[in-house]
Amino acid sequence: MTSLKEFIQSKTFERAIVALIIINAITLGLETSQTAMNAVGPLLILLDKVILGVFVAELIAKFIVYRQDFFKSPWRIFDFVIVGIALVPSAGAFSVLRALRILRVLRLVSVVPSLRRVIGGLLNALPGMGSIILLLALVFYVFSVMATKLFGGTFPDWFGSLGASAYTLFQIMTLESWSMGIVRPVMDAFPWAWAFFIPFIACTTFTVLNLFIGVVVSAMQKEHDEDAAGSRQELHDENVVIINELRALRSEISELKKQQN
Amino acid sequence: MTSLKEFIQSKTFERAIVALIIINAITLGLETSQTAMNAVGPLLILLDKVILGVFVAELIAKFIVYRQDFFKSPWRIFDFVIVGIALVPSAGAFSVLRALRILRVLRLVSVVPSLRRVIGGLLNALPGMGSIILLLALVFYVFSVMATKLFGGTFPDWFGSLGASAYTLFQIMTLESWSMGIVRPVMDAFPWAWAFFIPFIACTTFTVLNLFIGVVVSAMQKEHDEDAAGSRQELHDENVVIINELRALRSEISELKKQQN
Amino acid sequence: MTSLKEFIQSKTFERAIVALIIINAITLGLETSQTAMNAVGPLLILLDKVILGVFVAELIAKFIVYRQDFFKSPWRIFDFVIVGIALVPSAGAFSVLRALRILRVLRLVSVVPSLRRVIGGLLNALPGMGSIILLLALVFYVFSVMATKLFGGTFPDWFGSLGASAYTLFQIMTLESWSMGIVRPVMDAFPWAWAFFIPFIACTTFTVLNLFIGVVVSAMQKEHDEDAAGSRQELHDENVVIINELRALRSEISELKKQQN
Amino acid sequence: MTSLKEFIQSKTFERAIVALIIINAITLGLETSQTAMNAVGPLLILLDKVILGVFVAELIAKFIVYRQDFFKSPWRIFDFVIVGIALVPSAGAFSVLRALRILRVLRLVSVVPSLRRVIGGLLNALPGMGSIILLLALVFYVFSVMATKLFGGTFPDWFGSLGASAYTLFQIMTLESWSMGIVRPVMDAFPWAWAFFIPFIACTTFTVLNLFIGVVVSAMQKEHDEDAAGSRQELHDENVVIINELRALRSEISELKKQQN
Repeated sequence: MTSLKEFIQSKTFERAIVALIIINAITLGLETSQTAMNAVGPLLILLDKVILGVFVAELIAKFIVYRQDFFKSPWRIFDFVIVGIALVPSAGAFSVLRALRILRVLRLVSVVPSLRRVIGGLLNALPGMGSIILLLALVFYVFSVMATKLFGGTFPDWFGSLGASAYTLFQIMTLESWSMGIVRPVMDAFPWAWAFFIPFIACTTFTVLNLFIGVVVSAMQKEHDEDAAGSRQELHDENVVIINELRALRSEISELKKQQN
Repeated sequence: MTSLKEFIQSKTFERAIVALIIINAITLGLETSQTAMNAVGPLLILLDKVILGVFVAELIAKFIVYRQDFFKSPWRIFDFVIVGIALVPSAGAFSVLRALRILRVLRLVSVVPSLRRVIGGLLNALPGMGSIILLLALVFYVFSVMATKLFGGTFPDWFGSLGASAYTLFQIMTLESWSMGIVRPVMDAFPWAWAFFIPFIACTTFTVLNLFIGVVVSAMQKEHDEDAAGSRQELHDENVVIINELRALRSEISELKKQQN
Repeated sequence: MTSLKEFIQSKTFERAIVALIIINAITLGLETSQTAMNAVGPLLILLDKVILGVFVAELIAKFIVYRQDFFKSPWRIFDFVIVGIALVPSAGAFSVLRALRILRVLRLVSVVPSLRRVIGGLLNALPGMGSIILLLALVFYVFSVMATKLFGGTFPDWFGSLGASAYTLFQIMTLESWSMGIVRPVMDAFPWAWAFFIPFIACTTFTVLNLFIGVVVSAMQKEHDEDAAGSRQELHDENVVIINELRALRSEISELKKQQN
Repeated sequence: MTSLKEFIQSKTFERAIVALIIINAITLGLETSQTAMNAVGPLLILLDKVILGVFVAELIAKFIVYRQDFFKSPWRIFDFVIVGIALVPSAGAFSVLRALRILRVLRLVSVVPSLRRVIGGLLNALPGMGSIILLLALVFYVFSVMATKLFGGTFPDWFGSLGASAYTLFQIMTLESWSMGIVRPVMDAFPWAWAFFIPFIACTTFTVLNLFIGVVVSAMQKEHDEDAAGSRQELHDENVVIINELRALRSEISELKKQQN
């Protein structure tokens, strides 16, 4: 048991897994090329199966080692789901799942520490942004319902249902063809439509920029604030030394005074 | 009276209102679906009316409690306007107002404190941006008048009136189809038109970016500056302790000298 | 002379000028509306001429007061040029100049101090950005020449001359229709064209973002650094007090020692 | 030898090279104009050859001076490659290389110190961004493979091969015509396609913004942190003076006490 734990936590094992993920990424990439499939197709499929087998064995080993703690690490859950997808029979209605096998390459994120740190840093910044995300969702919902009621009858392709409206409003938020593609045609039917869409654009682009910059800057500032806190701590410690020194001086002088009396 | 005040300020009441807003959001969303309306249409409309009734009762209760102070809170004015919209008879020319009923969901912003804080923070940052907003409005007005005079005759759809020009310039500022859609056709008639539009794009995109980043960063920096001010205050307080300690020492030594003489 | 100077520097005079600029902005805006011109056209044109007369008189008064110093203030030069444009006879080939009369409204920037400060702040940040602007100009020139040579023959509308290439590359830099509008058609003729345009997009969007953020942040940081410098100065001054206090103490003790010997 | 070294490192020589680069930029720009070529074509081509000769002579001189150290400066390698391109015979299949001659103007970056510093600053910030760039490449690869497998059969122009998919996804990342041009047509065939593209847009635009802002801000913060470190050092030094002063005081008082006993 301990030797198994040592083995799956060893640098060598980790590097082997990284190598296998990269090889798997290449074989899955080659599978998209008809020329490569004609030349070495069976080999690619075999390699893919072998590597999937190794990943399954790795997960089983981790199950044995961590037991009930297995699902405590979000990265292990991530690995579990991604490897799991590849095991679902990909025939018939599930044929789309075959395309999801490439998601296995994302395991690189859970294996390479520097990538794990980047993702972790961004995810950590999200909770502080909870209110802004909730606000954005609220604005989207309100405008989607309004757009469906106002324009749904005349433009069913764009605003025919809540989902269609939300998609179209997302497109408008990204500013893609918002005017020539959507709002000018809508304004031909409803001349006041600009009063609906321009405030929507102003609110949402500002909120999204706020959200993105907020996450980036707060992640950066945390680092910077730690530095600043360190140097303030240093100055504070020096002040404590000075104050103690002064108190010692004072008590010595008090003694001196007593001696003289 | 005091018991009514206590009631409407209680956590339970607040939570009940939040629950009603969320239920109302769902019923108003379902009203956009033909399937849902066929199945449970009358129920949805009844629910909507009941919830509106509760909101009206809530507002009346707040009127009774706060009396002349009612309109001192911007959030209560916000609630008042939004509930008021739903009471306007929505027949005939006012049928658009039916679509505005969903705005009631925005009451969530006035009820949930964290959302209220986000909105408040952004609104507080706006006054510091007053000059930039005024500048942007000025640039828009000047370029709209010029565009109407220069291109209004040839391109009445885009620049036929001040309003049309302002809308088209807003589209150009967001960079949507500015070149292929607007400026290239204009340049076929006025080859020097790029000298009008490119400075406009450079000025306005820069000013808007300046405005957005300014609001976001100034909101963040306020927080950060308060932290920094706190730690500087701490160092300053320690210095005050040191200086007082020194003065005390000095007076003791003076006494010592006097004793010796 | 001194009374004239006092007059043109007085608050009342400044406010009167601001009022005239705003009235002029409204009359020039109304001139774009056919309805307004039919109703009160001659009045609008008369008002415009009267206000222009006042502005000319104001400039002459400032000439008399400041004499050779007149051109030392960039804001006065700005006023001079803008009022000058309105005096050029606007017939025939110069008819475009009639549309430039609205630029007079920009005088608001030179008259209102808060606007003057915003513009000043941004212009002050530009010199520090000189290298980045030079770099951007260099990249634009190099890519324009290359695009003209490579694609000018096949796509004369887009890359037929240096100017056309620079305009098209500016459009591509703003990401407007870059792919569907320009690069996909070019790639039908030159399949490797993506290797020209994608590096161009990456370099220029990054450089422009760098430039814009640089100007905004450096303007903000200047303010913030001044605050920080102020508080550091305070801590430093306290340290000087402490050190002087200590030196005084030491000399007193030295005296004490001498007394005892 | 030393005189040659002094010569090529002298200010005069540097300025002459800058002047030649600018002249060369102008002649190469004029070569794109048919009118200029008809008028002074042979002169322009002669000038270009002469200047190229000078650049080759400059490189040879630097080879002689620096010998094996020549390739230690990345800027000299840059000059070497750029001048080298111009020497490849530009007939037949290499005719594209004729257009690359304008790249010589980029030598300005390696010669003007302020430009060299800007580029250096940006390149220095890149390594800290390594993880984000790797993450972006990973996301692009995974989504390209998936898009090719999912949509390649139905939309061969956009997703027919890994390269085509990567190009189309880059276009989508820049938000150019992503919805009206690509995703709406794809959704007509695969109604759930939004669930593929919207997460892609959200992830990649956020990551790229993160990358760009990260580079810009980290370059700025480095400067700012150095300032802050300097002032903290100053405060620390003053504290050291204070502590030493105090220790001296204490030892004097100790002496005083010994004298009295």
